[in-house]
Amino acid sequence: MVAIDLYSDLGESYGVWRLGDDEAMLAVVTSANVACGFHAGDPSTLRAVCRAAAAAGVAIGAQVAYPDLLGFGRRMIDMEPGELQDAVLYQLGALDAFAQVAGAEVGYVKPHGALYHVTAADAEAAAAVVAATAEYDPSLAVLGAPGSELLREADAAGLEPVPEGFADRAYLPDGGLVSRRQRDAVLADPARVAEQAVRLATAHEVVAIDGSVVPVDAQSLCVHGDTPGAVDLAHAVRAALESAGVEIRPFTA
Amino acid sequence: MVAIDLYSDLGESYGVWRLGDDEAMLAVVTSANVACGFHAGDPSTLRAVCRAAAAAGVAIGAQVAYPDLLGFGRRMIDMEPGELQDAVLYQLGALDAFAQVAGAEVGYVKPHGALYHVTAADAEAAAAVVAATAEYDPSLAVLGAPGSELLREADAAGLEPVPEGFADRAYLPDGGLVSRRQRDAVLADPARVAEQAVRLATAHEVVAIDGSVVPVDAQSLCVHGDTPGAVDLAHAVRAALESAGVEIRPFTA
Amino acid sequence: MVAIDLYSDLGESYGVWRLGDDEAMLAVVTSANVACGFHAGDPSTLRAVCRAAAAAGVAIGAQVAYPDLLGFGRRMIDMEPGELQDAVLYQLGALDAFAQVAGAEVGYVKPHGALYHVTAADAEAAAAVVAATAEYDPSLAVLGAPGSELLREADAAGLEPVPEGFADRAYLPDGGLVSRRQRDAVLADPARVAEQAVRLATAHEVVAIDGSVVPVDAQSLCVHGDTPGAVDLAHAVRAALESAGVEIRPFTA
Amino acid sequence: MVAIDLYSDLGESYGVWRLGDDEAMLAVVTSANVACGFHAGDPSTLRAVCRAAAAAGVAIGAQVAYPDLLGFGRRMIDMEPGELQDAVLYQLGALDAFAQVAGAEVGYVKPHGALYHVTAADAEAAAAVVAATAEYDPSLAVLGAPGSELLREADAAGLEPVPEGFADRAYLPDGGLVSRRQRDAVLADPARVAEQAVRLATAHEVVAIDGSVVPVDAQSLCVHGDTPGAVDLAHAVRAALESAGVEIRPFTA
Repeated sequence: MVAIDLYSDLGESYGVWRLGDDEAMLAVVTSANVACGFHAGDPSTLRAVCRAAAAAGVAIGAQVAYPDLLGFGRRMIDMEPGELQDAVLYQLGALDAFAQVAGAEVGYVKPHGALYHVTAADAEAAAAVVAATAEYDPSLAVLGAPGSELLREADAAGLEPVPEGFADRAYLPDGGLVSRRQRDAVLADPARVAEQAVRLATAHEVVAIDGSVVPVDAQSLCVHGDTPGAVDLAHAVRAALESAGVEIRPFTA
Repeated sequence: MVAIDLYSDLGESYGVWRLGDDEAMLAVVTSANVACGFHAGDPSTLRAVCRAAAAAGVAIGAQVAYPDLLGFGRRMIDMEPGELQDAVLYQLGALDAFAQVAGAEVGYVKPHGALYHVTAADAEAAAAVVAATAEYDPSLAVLGAPGSELLREADAAGLEPVPEGFADRAYLPDGGLVSRRQRDAVLADPARVAEQAVRLATAHEVVAIDGSVVPVDAQSLCVHGDTPGAVDLAHAVRAALESAGVEIRPFTA
Repeated sequence: MVAIDLYSDLGESYGVWRLGDDEAMLAVVTSANVACGFHAGDPSTLRAVCRAAAAAGVAIGAQVAYPDLLGFGRRMIDMEPGELQDAVLYQLGALDAFAQVAGAEVGYVKPHGALYHVTAADAEAAAAVVAATAEYDPSLAVLGAPGSELLREADAAGLEPVPEGFADRAYLPDGGLVSRRQRDAVLADPARVAEQAVRLATAHEVVAIDGSVVPVDAQSLCVHGDTPGAVDLAHAVRAALESAGVEIRPFTA
Repeated sequence: MVAIDLYSDLGESYGVWRLGDDEAMLAVVTSANVACGFHAGDPSTLRAVCRAAAAAGVAIGAQVAYPDLLGFGRRMIDMEPGELQDAVLYQLGALDAFAQVAGAEVGYVKPHGALYHVTAADAEAAAAVVAATAEYDPSLAVLGAPGSELLREADAAGLEPVPEGFADRAYLPDGGLVSRRQRDAVLADPARVAEQAVRLATAHEVVAIDGSVVPVDAQSLCVHGDTPGAVDLAHAVRAALESAGVEIRPFTA
């Protein structure tokens, strides 16, 4: 049977400041990238999200980031590889404590924001994130962009690399994403988003902006929860996948 | 055979700022209270101390604190019990990750600074720290002042309460410590410090400032590492204990 | 002519996290308590709010707080008076830089959250806040609760003490506020809120919960901007005051 | 008469963590680059240093930095120019408050650590730092490397650019510094350091590592205070300059 994972970024509130609707998204996704306190996510938020995810049977991943609350982890910080490895290990351990007391465990790691972009292109930074993951628990998976240095390093270290796909992003003919700085980077039409999700899950391909059909081997699809209409769109994607006979389940299962 | 544990506060550097001589103290103590990043201790410091402690066979404890780098955890922060429990769990998980990759594990919890004082007297705060400890790992011990609310709550929760003693502090006739605000609160004479350590370990008693003999049931003795001459004094205490036939070993063994 | 000031707490966003509708409130109030970065308010938010306030002719006050982003300044931190004075001076200088480049200046100081409550009751803490204010600029006013230690210390130091009133809070017969922990602490009926605002401004009195009439000498009235319907209620209060012939103007004018 | 300024980085302690000997260095230098709280320097440290500098007649400069306590400002953070400008203005205002209550004022700006390196080479970042400086006070000077983008932008904005020199660093034939990663980057021989200081001050030139004589137009010389023997070396430099008839005075005078 054809199966796919749906994931979203969760736990990104901080104190009085709320972001996203974690509860609503946990009813849609099968994996939760939970912030670990460095770009967002205070300890009480981590507990609440881990508890709710465990109760909903949603897999928990560590959304590790640069230490940058003000920039929400979106600003590259020029850290030494060793420093970066230590920062990732710290976050992993902290989040896993909340996962464990909720009766679950961290099942994978996904870099957030600037760290996502840096580890996609920079082998040294990717190796640092992978090293922290492998030393903590070699059974952890690593979620990232297909073709990224991150997944290459994960594979080389014996960790399971999990490529992701985007239902609502326009693709280039080479399998990359259209930059968010360009118009038409994000698909707005719910029907087209649902269609792309189904094609990714069932045929492992997308139609690129030039009309060509591109192979994309995604084991997990990103759905957003922090923009207006996002929760509805996520439900529409899930419904379309289920109608197409696709099983929605965590890739860590 | 008579045995006692020697502990010290370690891992209290932060970035370029150094504090104490962790390496030297690891050659003296059998337990290390390692800072967890909230009052001191960046991720790379945690790694270095856990690695060195594991290599030296020194037990690792989580020195949990209020989130207060500027105040070094010495300022009480009026946190809700739930918030405090979450903050302690976060620190515990983070430190344990470094202990585990070093081939060791966190064996006990000790509150630091203002949290030490608050949990000695306030049952609600003590229960919050104990709850985080128990939910993370019920085999963890809790190190604290004899007669404190902290040890009472630990005991009530089924955790092992471990009372501490001080070789270099003057005691009151009721078993409490002379306040640091008073003269003669700290014993300066190495011979007297060594003598008090031996009496605590072998006879479970001290001579109080009024000359009376007071029972003190300490399973672990504090030695300081961050003042001039402290390392030498710690070595002198250890030598005196060994001469008296006292075995120096972790209480967690 | 009868006149009153209307103030609100502004600038309380932080990075990606938004709080309140600063723009909308600047169309209602005559004074803005601007967060200074310690409980909320990153540098770019400070610039935006100061610029908009200056453009709207709204007076700028420094909403100084404990250093506590996670707790939004609502958690008391047991700081020494000297530390507190230094923390307040730091915030004052930082905010004033943004006020000045916007062509305005900080005109008053108001403690936020836990610091508001502590300086209402604790003369030493109140004196520390006042000392920082006076040394920075003795022409600054201090906004606070009538009868508070803060206003007493401000007066003693030669600063202008400015007592505040609340249009939407229930009053006790002694002039204090009904605790937020009690039902009926907050007035929900817009007509009653508007009526209380007008009575405070014109007759310097309120009707307390027991029906008695209590003198309240408020020179500035608080209007909230961060709850649903708050902006509309603020407009209603302003309209009622204007209908009653009350001039709405900054107390610093 | 020939004159030169001597500066050092001061105020770089944080809470319990001490760095450098501010008191000793204030007896040597004529300008103090004071940390502003982003890479080091808590509010109470700022007060103490500003007070001591004012008492000693030492000029105060704002040592602005990226927000990075853990990395001591040595890690580049990829901030937008607007964000950077706001961060610099915030630091400037905060420090100036302490300078003013000490009876002095901030007289110049100098970027620290990674921001120093970035603004030397990147015109956009340099312009952001200069813009914050100019909008705060156009009479402020900007201290930096000769030939840097920072000084070029300062000049273009109408601010006084002040080039610095190093008594204890080896120079390249093009007037640049030998990288610290190379051996012989730092001059260890006190006699040679003193000689280079005198030559910089009197002849505006240095002998580069290849023996060639290179023109270096420095108006301020850096002396370090945070390494063993540094204070003695700084005194030796000052004594040599005075023996050579060079007046030691702030460039802001």
